[in-house]
This record gives sequence, structure tokens and C-alpha cells, in this order.
Amino acid sequence: MSSLRLDGRTPDEPRSLHFTRGWLPNQPGSVLVDCGLTRVLCTAVVEEGVPPFLKNTDEGWVTAEYSMLPASTGSRKQRDRAGKTDGRSIEIQRLIGRALRAVVNRKALKGRTVWVDCDVLAADGGTRTASINGAYVALHDALSALKTQGQLRSWPLDDSVQAVSVGVVDGEVRVDLSYYEDSSAEVDLNLVMTGGGQLIELGGGAEQGTFSVQRLGEMVELGQQALARIQAVQRQALGS
Amino acid sequence: MSSLRLDGRTPDEPRSLHFTRGWLPNQPGSVLVDCGLTRVLCTAVVEEGVPPFLKNTDEGWVTAEYSMLPASTGSRKQRDRAGKTDGRSIEIQRLIGRALRAVVNRKALKGRTVWVDCDVLAADGGTRTASINGAYVALHDALSALKTQGQLRSWPLDDSVQAVSVGVVDGEVRVDLSYYEDSSAEVDLNLVMTGGGQLIELGGGAEQGTFSVQRLGEMVELGQQALARIQAVQRQALGS
Amino acid sequence: MSSLRLDGRTPDEPRSLHFTRGWLPNQPGSVLVDCGLTRVLCTAVVEEGVPPFLKNTDEGWVTAEYSMLPASTGSRKQRDRAGKTDGRSIEIQRLIGRALRAVVNRKALKGRTVWVDCDVLAADGGTRTASINGAYVALHDALSALKTQGQLRSWPLDDSVQAVSVGVVDGEVRVDLSYYEDSSAEVDLNLVMTGGGQLIELGGGAEQGTFSVQRLGEMVELGQQALARIQAVQRQALGS
Amino acid sequence: MSSLRLDGRTPDEPRSLHFTRGWLPNQPGSVLVDCGLTRVLCTAVVEEGVPPFLKNTDEGWVTAEYSMLPASTGSRKQRDRAGKTDGRSIEIQRLIGRALRAVVNRKALKGRTVWVDCDVLAADGGTRTASINGAYVALHDALSALKTQGQLRSWPLDDSVQAVSVGVVDGEVRVDLSYYEDSSAEVDLNLVMTGGGQLIELGGGAEQGTFSVQRLGEMVELGQQALARIQAVQRQALGS
Amino acid sequence: MSSLRLDGRTPDEPRSLHFTRGWLPNQPGSVLVDCGLTRVLCTAVVEEGVPPFLKNTDEGWVTAEYSMLPASTGSRKQRDRAGKTDGRSIEIQRLIGRALRAVVNRKALKGRTVWVDCDVLAADGGTRTASINGAYVALHDALSALKTQGQLRSWPLDDSVQAVSVGVVDGEVRVDLSYYEDSSAEVDLNLVMTGGGQLIELGGGAEQGTFSVQRLGEMVELGQQALARIQAVQRQALGS
Amino acid sequence: MSSLRLDGRTPDEPRSLHFTRGWLPNQPGSVLVDCGLTRVLCTAVVEEGVPPFLKNTDEGWVTAEYSMLPASTGSRKQRDRAGKTDGRSIEIQRLIGRALRAVVNRKALKGRTVWVDCDVLAADGGTRTASINGAYVALHDALSALKTQGQLRSWPLDDSVQAVSVGVVDGEVRVDLSYYEDSSAEVDLNLVMTGGGQLIELGGGAEQGTFSVQRLGEMVELGQQALARIQAVQRQALGS
Repeated sequence: MSSLRLDGRTPDEPRSLHFTRGWLPNQPGSVLVDCGLTRVLCTAVVEEGVPPFLKNTDEGWVTAEYSMLPASTGSRKQRDRAGKTDGRSIEIQRLIGRALRAVVNRKALKGRTVWVDCDVLAADGGTRTASINGAYVALHDALSALKTQGQLRSWPLDDSVQAVSVGVVDGEVRVDLSYYEDSSAEVDLNLVMTGGGQLIELGGGAEQGTFSVQRLGEMVELGQQALARIQAVQRQALGS
Repeated sequence: MSSLRLDGRTPDEPRSLHFTRGWLPNQPGSVLVDCGLTRVLCTAVVEEGVPPFLKNTDEGWVTAEYSMLPASTGSRKQRDRAGKTDGRSIEIQRLIGRALRAVVNRKALKGRTVWVDCDVLAADGGTRTASINGAYVALHDALSALKTQGQLRSWPLDDSVQAVSVGVVDGEVRVDLSYYEDSSAEVDLNLVMTGGGQLIELGGGAEQGTFSVQRLGEMVELGQQALARIQAVQRQALGS
Repeated sequence: MSSLRLDGRTPDEPRSLHFTRGWLPNQPGSVLVDCGLTRVLCTAVVEEGVPPFLKNTDEGWVTAEYSMLPASTGSRKQRDRAGKTDGRSIEIQRLIGRALRAVVNRKALKGRTVWVDCDVLAADGGTRTASINGAYVALHDALSALKTQGQLRSWPLDDSVQAVSVGVVDGEVRVDLSYYEDSSAEVDLNLVMTGGGQLIELGGGAEQGTFSVQRLGEMVELGQQALARIQAVQRQALGS
Repeated sequence: MSSLRLDGRTPDEPRSLHFTRGWLPNQPGSVLVDCGLTRVLCTAVVEEGVPPFLKNTDEGWVTAEYSMLPASTGSRKQRDRAGKTDGRSIEIQRLIGRALRAVVNRKALKGRTVWVDCDVLAADGGTRTASINGAYVALHDALSALKTQGQLRSWPLDDSVQAVSVGVVDGEVRVDLSYYEDSSAEVDLNLVMTGGGQLIELGGGAEQGTFSVQRLGEMVELGQQALARIQAVQRQALGS
Repeated sequence: MSSLRLDGRTPDEPRSLHFTRGWLPNQPGSVLVDCGLTRVLCTAVVEEGVPPFLKNTDEGWVTAEYSMLPASTGSRKQRDRAGKTDGRSIEIQRLIGRALRAVVNRKALKGRTVWVDCDVLAADGGTRTASINGAYVALHDALSALKTQGQLRSWPLDDSVQAVSVGVVDGEVRVDLSYYEDSSAEVDLNLVMTGGGQLIELGGGAEQGTFSVQRLGEMVELGQQALARIQAVQRQALGS
Repeated sequence: MSSLRLDGRTPDEPRSLHFTRGWLPNQPGSVLVDCGLTRVLCTAVVEEGVPPFLKNTDEGWVTAEYSMLPASTGSRKQRDRAGKTDGRSIEIQRLIGRALRAVVNRKALKGRTVWVDCDVLAADGGTRTASINGAYVALHDALSALKTQGQLRSWPLDDSVQAVSVGVVDGEVRVDLSYYEDSSAEVDLNLVMTGGGQLIELGGGAEQGTFSVQRLGEMVELGQQALARIQAVQRQALGS
């Protein structure tokens, strides 16, 4: 691991990461995430009521939506309107929802739904992992506000969540790929873990090429190290 | 005009207004507009090609899309997906497009379309006028970048554009209504004018109640004064 | 104001206007409007129930839909089916709804919704103003039928509604533009007023060009005169 | 066949039928059909171009669309917007298209498509047969106009088309059912034939109950007699 | 009737027909229908609840959906997704529903809906008639299972249902057309009858050409004979 | 690993698997896959032409669609019609496409697209892995047919593809979960590998709970063994 990447990072070095909390005046759970040149607005809004399949249970729900603004990419991307389905967006927002639910005690949210929205304002790779990292902070803030209002009997978060991409570029394992690296990666894996070091979800592969089980092990190991760094930035942002 | 408004403004005083230019790293025409507590991201992206009705003509086109992020309002607003049409959004984006086209020399854009996107990040009233004010700055910046690249033979902007709302609240004419004022206004009018003091478009009325032709005159007069102030902020932002 | 228009009218002269009431055998509120070569079928149907946002209030509702039949224009216009949104139709139907609601006492409609449908059978300009003028007559007739059935405790109409377009063509202010005039107009404004001479809504401008505040005054003045003529035709049709 | 029907007709007597040709000022192929209390506007508009499956052939096309205006029925029917599919409308418009194509020489229409629109303004049963009867007249008129302009080398209509419904009500075979009769019919059959007495299409049955092959014979025979009367009215309308 | 058809059948001979009952392990009402090279999977699933228009009545409902898998035809057919409507499919599924309801005593189904799905796996003509023939067997099996569970007070089927196509090819009347014959048929009629020999529905005609009333008689007669053969195969399959 | 599962399998034992090749008469690439009680129809159809992003390149394309028939699950599942998006289906069909493309030499498919359709006829868990296993066989057969016709210059498949699910149920790692096991699994991972033992894609996690990196290792190891057995069944089916 000695080569330098285009932006000067070492292979095991995630991009600079910054969370601006309370970025929207009227939404306590609103976080502007800057990860390299990628910028995502993550909001968490709590509403009364639960989806039909949780009616008459003692559980609440956390769900997510992900969308890219038209100008977030270099050339303009058309909006998701009028019944056109963007499969990639659906895949990502389902992942964000599962990631958050893994650390939420749903019973502590009984009767409520938290809507997490991740809107990509600028895209330079890693929008799904930036979304997860910011969504956790937004969720934390929205729940803190609820707690301050005396509306929570118990704290619903069991742990924190971090996500990072790990790829193989030019035969080298690298973390937190930029768009340029991602587009030439042979393998691309997303890791989602808890602050406690447990896996929540992993997923990936590559359009072209394959990889060995041993290489998988290396990728998970490097990813774990990067996740620890990301967790530290989250903690600092949350002042905990 | 002696009464004070909830936020301390005099009736003829528009809200504090600020434009952050180049807010997205990779989009020269990207402006974050803050108008009171309303925040809108306006982007202008130039693409090759024109709509079908301009094929084989010597004109280009400017079009706009307007959308509110789910968390921009107090309670979460559902996204415009899967064929659900938000009539208000359509009305507003058509207005933005017409306002900009009024000061654009389309022949200077021959063969190109400028896509202007106004995405409301926080909504506290006046999102359509903030969108127009910011869209003009974003359009200006996108065209400047094009010019710098030597891709424009003549400068396509004939004048600048400003917009402001004027309403009647508690029997008093006031400019630039916040959401709170707007929701209790008897009359609500939007004025769009050029920097040169000419009308581009005006439109409004009220769900309840009616107003006299004389009152219309007062509203237009107060609006003109506010537009002059808004123009000054635009000029300062553009450094011209 | 001395020039003659293509159809022989003076600038301040609206087109011939005729309302055929009860045009559909089974719908008391059904009016065929002929305004020059423009022909619109306006119907008003009263249904029990109100939209969700009025549940548990003491108010009723009036809403409108506007559509153009495929053969109403010279070349065939595609139908609004399968999720395709016609922004102009949405804009117009929202205007019709607001115009009517301005003269309706909603409490007198408690628990009911009036659906007003304006279907353009032949389009030669001014379809939105013809729709409003006819919609008022259809609404009046539908409510009269309800009253005759003893189902209304108080009369819900506070005033009448009229609408007219005013444009600037060849530098001259003219009222009630035909399609030919409209397509070459520099400015186009729609005025909606009550029979009592109060403004309900005004809106307009132009794709190309701008106009002065003084010119706005002239347009409103000429429009008011035309609206008085239109009101007279409505009164005669209603036999009041 | 001695009993009288609710509207005084004998079982073999179709309703009063009237065609108003040229009902829309700017569309030569526009016919208002009144059949009892059913009223349909049929238009035929000729456009250059053919559907993809006829590209590079020597044939033209005739297609139809059918729709009911919201107020055409007693209670308001929702519009076919935003992706909601009305199966019955689709079934009917396909039938109208097939009926007309059966008497059209498609080669004489080479390179052209005739769009036939049947919009039901008032519905009292028999809207599909009234649509076919009127559509033929509108098609005839649109083609005559084309011929007058010298744009047709040969006359595309080989024959005329008529349609009528035949039902069994209270055990009695009756033609041209009104809505009231239709809703209590045991069997309901639609017959489409040429002026020359040949069958184009027949279709029907009933939601409840069944019928014998012998009864089918009686229905077809009575239908044929009614179609002869309808043909006579068409001929008179067309002045041939 | 002496000529031989491409597949060796005589004009009055339907294709080989086979029903595989219980083809899906967990669905008692699941039948694989093989009719020549046409293969359809018909399932009948009983659910609690009825459509809105039957709420508070003592009747149940039977409804059908019909769809073709993409690879069922020679070249791939696009799926019915994202709001695109296939008019032919809608027409066919409405026919299947009506055919089944004609022999169902709806009161015996009170409070229940039977969903019949006909998915075409391989299409070689006659998919709608194969669907009806198999749907009857699937419906019979689903209801038998319900009866075995003691959930039916009375048997809901009054009779059986059969369907067959009859066409005119090269001037000759033939039954049960294959795709090849269907595509060159002058006339194509579908007959749906009960096991008791009563007509439920008939419908057809042709895109090109017309036919005499006498020819209709011949077609019905030949169709009746084929339906008797189909009924025999159904009976044998059901072991009754 | 000594416990027995509900269906008698040991933890490392995949379900009985069977491929019926050429199951549709007219489609060479059509395979009926039976995996336990799960049954999927996989077809591969080759069409001329490529998606827009491959125009003017020397590559072909392989894409997949996945859908569940309404009766494939115990209670009826609504069809994907009219713009309703099933996020899970989209996720799965994207996975199938990526899995196949990993072993395809796209240049050997230049100018062609292979459409792979996986339609679930009966669902008892593992429908996505059964789809991938069958899709590979169908793709192989469709390409073989093309080769036989002399239309392929080089063989496009570089390797074979297998997929299996691995889960943790009651604290025990098990392969190829049935629906019953899947619904109570703590962790669920899907492994897609080549016949040569290389990873193509892996993905999974769980709605509730987390897992250690060590446990991931165990799951991958057990999955590899199951994939070898699945590969053997594929080979036997293909007679290679």
C-alpha cells in the first residue's frame, strides 16, 4: 500500500468528511454532509403513524428516500417524475432504510415513523455511503429533539452506523472511491457496520471481472479501518 | 405605513436576501439563495440541443423546473414521483421559465437549451420569487462560464429579472410575505419586472375576498420599490 | 382607438357571446358557451362529500377541471391520458376553481363539493375566459336546481364572476383576443372580476417583450369596460 | 311483438336519430349525434404519417378514441388521467376503429392516418353504436373535404357502416336499448354491419344468464331491420 | 369440409387439449393448459372481501387478469409495466371474467372474491379460449378445496364453461385456429358457451372483409360441435 | 453442524434442484427451474440492437427482468402494472443482469441484446438464486442455438454462474433457505460465484441484528461448498 491516488490519498485513507448539523432552520434533524466533492442533504422528520403492516403492533418504523438533484452530476440528470423508475435510486434508498433500522429499537418508536431523506446536491462518488453516514447523524438529532420535548420514554438508538466503499482499482484495494476511481474499479463493495464493529450489511461486486475470497477478506479488513475513522468524525460532530 | 410586522420589518421592507454563487463545486451556474428563512438552490446547466418545436430554427431555449424537497416544509411533503402531479409546482416552474425568457435573446443561444432547476430546501413563503431572483443569478453565471470558454458569440441577456410578492394583510399592503403572513393574506400578488423597470408578468388574487383596482395600483407601486432593493443585492452579488 | 381588427371589431369590443343553458338533458348545470368561434361545454355537478382537508369543518368546496377535446384545435391534440401532464391545463383549471370560489359562500355548501368541468370543443383563443364566464352560469344553474329541491338553506353565491383577456397587439390595447391575435400579442393579461367591479385575480405577461406600469393601467381600464358587457350577457341569459 | 316500451317504442323501433354535420366551425369532419337522449361528438381529423407498423407500406390507417365527459352520466365520472385505465373505453375505441377500417380502402389513404374521436357528451345507453354511426358520417365528411382539395386519387370508402344494440329485456327481443333497458337486459348484443347487409362484427352476451342459438338468430334478424332504418337516416344526412 | 389443414386437422377438429391440475404445489386451483403449442397457466385464488360496488350486498365476485410473458411469442413482448396499457389484454381479461361469472352463483360466494389469473407461457393462437377453458378447471378446483375445508354452504357453479375460436380461412370455416391460420383469417369469431349448450358470449369479426349472416350460422354450428369435444376433455380431467 | 432442518436437510445441504431445458416449444433458451418448492421459468431471447449507451461500440448487452406471478405466493400478489414500482423486483433483476454479464464476453455479442426473463411461478424462498442458476442455463441454450445457426464468431461465455443464499437461523449457518427459514433468519446473504470459484457478487445482511466479520467468513465457506453442488447439477443438465 504505497501508491498515491489522484487526490493524494493513500489507499486506506477515506476522503475528508464534514457534517453540518441543523443546516435547515426549521428541521432539527437536518445535516449537510460533505465528503470530498460529494455533498448530500440528509434530513430526518418524525411523523405520527406507522405503515399498514405495523398497525396494531408495538413498533415504529424508519424509512428512507434517496434522490439526486438534476444538477448534482456533470450533465443534467432528469427528475424522477411521471412514473419513470430509477432502479438505482430504489436500491439505494432500501439500503439506507435497512442500515438505520439495524441500530434502532423499534419499540421505542412505537406509533411513529421517521422519514429520512437523502438528497444528493453534488455527486462525486460514494453518495450512498455519505447518505448513510449523514442519515445516522440526522436521525440522532431528530430523536434528540424528540427526547428534549419529553416525547420519548427510552432512547431508540442501540448503536451508531457507518458506511464506506472499498474497491479494487488497478489491482489495489482502496477505500472511499471518488467518481473517477469508481468508474474504473474492477470490484466495488459497500460495507455498512455498527460503531461496535459488527456487520450490518455488505454488498457489491463488479460489472466486469471477478475476485477471490481472499481478496474479499482484504477488502473487509481495510474497510473496517476506514469505518473507525468515519465513526470518529461522527462522534466529534455529535459532541459525544 | 407605520405598523411593524412580526419579524420587525416595515410594510415596504423585503426580507434579508443573500446569494452564494458557485455553491456546487462542479456547476458554475449554482446559487444558494437565502431570503429570510427560505432557502433555494438554483442551478443553470447548458446542454446542446433544443426542444422539437425549435428544431431547424435559429433560436435556443431556457426552461425551468421547480420542486420542494420533502423536508423543506414543517411536516414532510411527499415527492413528485410515480405520476402524481403537483399542480402548484407546474404553475411555478412555468412562471420561472417565462420570466427568464423575457430577458434572454434566444438567437444568442441558438442550438442550446439552458435547464434551470430551483429546488426549495427550506420554505418560509416566497419560494417562487426567491427562485426567480436566484435563477437569474445562476443563469448569468452559467452563461458567463460559456462566454469565458469562447462559446458565445453575443451576450444573451438583455436585462436582469427580479420578483417579489405583495400582499394585503390586515388591510395593509406589505411586500415579500413570509409563510405566516401569506397564510393570512387577503390578497397576494407576484410581480416580476426587469432591472429596467418594465413589467414581465404579474399574477395573483386570493382564495377569499376581492380587491379594488385602486388597491392594485398601491400594490404595484410598493412592489416596484422592493424590486429596486432586490436588484441592488443581485448587482452586488454579481459584482457589477 | 380607431383601427379595425381582422374580424371587424373595435379594440374595446369583446366577441359575440352566447350561453345555451341546460344544454345536456340530464344535467341542470350544463351550459354551451359560444364566444366568437370558441365553444366550451361547462357543467357543474354537485356531489355529497368534501376533500380531506375540509373534513370536520362547516365548509363545502368548488373545484374545476379543464380539458381540450383532441379536435378542438386545427391539428389534433393528444388526450391527457396515461400520466402525461399538460401544464397549461392544470394552470387553467386551478384558475377557474379560484375564480368561482371567490364568490361562493362555502359555508352554504357545507358537506358538498361542486365539480365544474370545462371541456373545450372548439378553440379560437380565450378558452380560459370563456370557461370562467360559462362556469359561473353553470354553477348558478346547478345551485338553483339544488335550491328548488329544497336542499339549500341559504344561497351560496355572493356575486357573479366575469373574465376577459386584454392584450397588446401591434402596440394597441385590445380586449378578448382571438387565437390569431393572441399568437401575435406582445402582452396578454387575463382579468377576472366580480359583477360588483372588484378584482378577483389578474395574471399575464408575455413570452417576449415587456410592458410599462402605465400600460398595465390602460389594459385594466379597457378590460373593466369589456367585463361590464360580458356581465350584461350573463344577466340576460340568466333572466335576472 | 306487441308490447310498448317505457318511451313508447315498439320492440323493433330504434330511437330517434339525428346527425348535425359540420358542428365544429373549423373541422369539416365533425358531427353531433343525437340518438334519443344520448349525445356524442364525433370528429375525424386527417394527419400526415402512419403508425410504425405501416412504415414503408402503401397503406394508410384509421384509428379511434372514445371517451366520456365527466358530466355525461348522472353522477360525475372521473377523467381518464394519470395512468388510470378504463377498460371499457379501450374495448369500445378498438371496436370503433375496426368497424371503420372494414369499409376503408387503406391504400387510398396511403401515408395518412385518420384520427376519429368519439366524445360522449350525454350518455343514455347505446354510446358505442351512436359513436360508430356518427363516426362514419364524420369520416365521410373529412374525406370529402380532402377530395375537394384534390388530395385524394381514389375514394377510400367501399361501403357505409351502421351499428345497433339488440337486447333481451323481460324475455323480449328489443333494439337500440336505452340505459334503463340496458341495465335490466338479460342479453345485450352489438351488431355492426355494412350498408350492403354484410356483417362486420358482432359481440355481446350478458353478465347474468345465457341464451340459446335460436335466440341469437332472432336478435340478428331484428337488428338487421333496425340497421336498415339507421342507414336511411345516414343517407339523408349525407344527402345521398 | 374435406381439405386438410397445415397441422393435419380437419376443419371441424380442435387442437389436442390437455389440463394438468394442481400444477403449482401450494395452489389447489392451478392448471397448466396445453392446447396445441399454446400453453397457459391458469390459477384461481380465493380471497376474503369484495369490490366496493358489492359492499353490503349478499354477493361475491369473480374477476380475471390476463397477461403474456415476454418470451411467450416468437420475438420478445414488453411487459405491461409503468402505466403502459395493452388494450388487447384488457379486452381479453374482461371477457374471461364475464364468461366465468355467467356460470357462478354469486350468492354462494358471498363476501369472497376469486382472482383468476391467466398467464400465457407460450402463444400459438387461441390464448383467450385456452385461458377460459383452463380458468374454468382452476376455478372448479379452487372451489372444491374451499368446499373440502367446509367453507362453502352451497356449490357456486351452476354449469361449466367452454370457449373456442371459429374462423374463415381461404373461404373455409375452421375451428380453433393456430397463430398461423389466425393471421390469415378473413373472419374470426370467439364462442363461449355453457356445458348445457347455451351461449354466454360471442364476439368477433375481421379487420378486413365482411361476412354474411348465413356464414355466421355455419360458424356457430361448427363451433358448437367443437365445444362439445372440449367439454369432454374438461370432464375427463375433472374426473366427473 | 449436526441439527436437522424442517425438511430434513443438514445445514450445508442445498435443496433438490432440477432444470428442464427447452421447456417452451418455440424458445431454445427456456428453462423451468425447480428448487425445492420454488419454480421459476427462465428464458433468454436474443434480439438485434443494443441500448443507446452502447451505440457505436463493439459490444453487445445482457439484461434481465424478474417478476412474480400473482399466484406464486400463498396469498395473491398484485401485478406490477400502472406505474406501481416493486422495489424488490427491481433490485433482483439488476442483480441477475450483473451476474450474467460477469461471465459474458460482450464483444462476442456485438450488436445484440439478450433479454433474460425470470418469472417466478411458485415462490418458497430463494427465488433470486434459482433465477440466476436457471438464467445461466437458459442463456447457454440461447447462445448455443445462435451458434448452431452460424451466427456467432466466438463463444461469448467465459465461465458459468451459480448463486446460493446462506443464512443464520437459530444461531446456525445454513445454506439455501426455504421461505420458512428465510423469514426467521437473523442474517441472510446471497453469494454469486463463477464455476471457477471466483466471487462475482455478494450481498446481504438482516433487517434485525448484526453479525461479526468471523461469521461472514463461515458463511462464505459454507456457501462455496453449496455452489459446487449446484454447479454439478447445471453441468449434468447441460450434458457437459
